[in-house]
Amino acid sequence: MKKCDLCDDPIFPVVWKNNKFRIVEINDPSYSAYYRVEYIEHVKEMTDLDENDRMELMKVVFTVETAIKNFYKPDKINLASLGNLSPHIHWHVVPRFKTDNHFPESIWSAQKKFEKTNISTQTKNKINQFISKNLNK
Amino acid sequence: MKKCDLCDDPIFPVVWKNNKFRIVEINDPSYSAYYRVEYIEHVKEMTDLDENDRMELMKVVFTVETAIKNFYKPDKINLASLGNLSPHIHWHVVPRFKTDNHFPESIWSAQKKFEKTNISTQTKNKINQFISKNLNK
Repeated sequence: MKKCDLCDDPIFPVVWKNNKFRIVEINDPSYSAYYRVEYIEHVKEMTDLDENDRMELMKVVFTVETAIKNFYKPDKINLASLGNLSPHIHWHVVPRFKTDNHFPESIWSAQKKFEKTNISTQTKNKINQFISKNLNK
Repeated sequence: MKKCDLCDDPIFPVVWKNNKFRIVEINDPSYSAYYRVEYIEHVKEMTDLDENDRMELMKVVFTVETAIKNFYKPDKINLASLGNLSPHIHWHVVPRFKTDNHFPESIWSAQKKFEKTNISTQTKNKINQFISKNLNK
């Protein structure tokens, strides 16, 4: 069977997890506070999950969106479950700014420039604390 | 105020609608059965909706995914709420095949070839009937 990257231990820092879901922070130098919400078990499509798990997973995604929106205040937030290369459920949650390297295109489109972003440690901590606090309730 | 395309009457065929949500079928010659689920009112982010509307909208998205999965049987289904150009909530629901023009990249990535897809009228009808039947319950 072909190896699945998402079934391996994550290479990115785990911000929060429980027995079903895991949030990692993607170390993308161009996109600070870019998170990925992963379903831990190998399942392909959102509609392969039962309704409870599916809606619980969406609540995790929306908690991450809220945290990013409240503390990082991007111009737009992108949510995407693609998985063509890794057909194992995972959601990209990406803060977008009008000044970023791809705006207004998707982050998978051709890059217009190559600039790094910088988020303060304080903002990142606030985002991560909000996520943990709200998901551990 | 800048004109919002999503606030206008849809240019694509409306497959189903109620007083809050609308499903249109994108006439993309390369992607048959590519649907967009739109929140009718102009709202920017998913987390700007109240929780009921947010979860109701996700159920509409997942009904479209189920219909595509059952009757068109793509290799993968992509879900995305981006809205960088049109910051008005809408979800792309895109059936992907290993033979399609962008696979395994996103449909917003550079196109590898330019081929049209063809879905039978029967399959399309089955998808649309499933959507209406399940959302009108």
